[in-house]
Amino acid sequence: MAGKVFFAVSMSLDGFSAPESMEGIRATPEQRERDPRLDRWVAQWMELQSWIFPVRFFRENLGLGEGGEEGLDNDVARTTFERTGASIMGRRMFDLGEHAWPESAPFHTPVFVLTHQPRDPWERPGGTTFHFVGDGIHKALDRAREAAGDRDVRIAGGSETILQFLNAGLVDEFSIALAPVLFGAGIRLFDGVDASRVRLEPVRSEPSSRATHLTYAVHRR
Amino acid sequence: MAGKVFFAVSMSLDGFSAPESMEGIRATPEQRERDPRLDRWVAQWMELQSWIFPVRFFRENLGLGEGGEEGLDNDVARTTFERTGASIMGRRMFDLGEHAWPESAPFHTPVFVLTHQPRDPWERPGGTTFHFVGDGIHKALDRAREAAGDRDVRIAGGSETILQFLNAGLVDEFSIALAPVLFGAGIRLFDGVDASRVRLEPVRSEPSSRATHLTYAVHRR
Repeated sequence: MAGKVFFAVSMSLDGFSAPESMEGIRATPEQRERDPRLDRWVAQWMELQSWIFPVRFFRENLGLGEGGEEGLDNDVARTTFERTGASIMGRRMFDLGEHAWPESAPFHTPVFVLTHQPRDPWERPGGTTFHFVGDGIHKALDRAREAAGDRDVRIAGGSETILQFLNAGLVDEFSIALAPVLFGAGIRLFDGVDASRVRLEPVRSEPSSRATHLTYAVHRR
Repeated sequence: MAGKVFFAVSMSLDGFSAPESMEGIRATPEQRERDPRLDRWVAQWMELQSWIFPVRFFRENLGLGEGGEEGLDNDVARTTFERTGASIMGRRMFDLGEHAWPESAPFHTPVFVLTHQPRDPWERPGGTTFHFVGDGIHKALDRAREAAGDRDVRIAGGSETILQFLNAGLVDEFSIALAPVLFGAGIRLFDGVDASRVRLEPVRSEPSSRATHLTYAVHRR
């Protein structure tokens, strides 16, 4: 049986899945001195994701060393990774990640990057190969499904890419790590959702001390 | 010891606490025929609040009759009511409620309405008295605290009023019934929050089959 199509992201209580810009991640010290917002955006991002940094699986998977916390947050991180047979991401997420991921990128599966600029597949040590797909989300999903086999396809991000798949009726399920933080501004996860066509069914809601892990199945209205 | 200042509202997963307009609630059949959005907005509101309608306490408190569901949703509705010694609301919420509440308004405590149009107190059967306060949120809170005694003061709404109190550092705690629904548009609960000054501490996160009940303590950053 074919796997599911899902996304799994962290979201602030006021609905943001990213700060206004992620440019702080690759900014030089000079740039950060000129624009103090860059540091603030990185701090927001760290706060949003703070449930995942201390867990054992995250440290293992990024090669940060032994140890780390067990428990629900760790289980969620591990399960999300293990169910994923292939990922799909937007070009901007890839561009940012290219600078932020370690050489052994943390996917360890095929990753399909939506882009209008064709490019040869890019193989990384540790089993991640990036494929650049220029013929639309349906074709990208066909290829990802095939690559994933029995496992699930993760729409990795960013939120614009996630919304394209959600509004096209291609998402079966999603998980949100709801972080106890208010952003006030930034990139809204569900900005532009076609609410008249998407119905949610609660599947799970589990709190850890750092986030509430919510899972919903997606149906057409 | 004085009570806490809190708010407790339902919120869609994408951060809305009300549809674009609540005018559908008091619209005539002719108005609803002319503007089909009115019915859609009421339907959204019903979906947002659907966790509370079947519970025993809600039925009791509005005089809808015997019976109703027990369980977490009922406990949340009852506890929220019982902790409240006085409420504060904005003028627009009062104007809408005036048409929607039964004669025996569902507060059964003093309610302080923020308004620029002074008016004599309005006493309803069943213990609700509306007081109209024209000298700002701090004065309204002083009067509500005094009226509440040992019990808590609830900032009832709407979201603009809630945000005024939150940004002024006057809210100790809040609860959200996170509904499994996406609105896409409407009134955002946290629109205009001063995120640089508000820090949240998770207190409780409890799922029912219809909503996830989240409680946070509010601290200054």
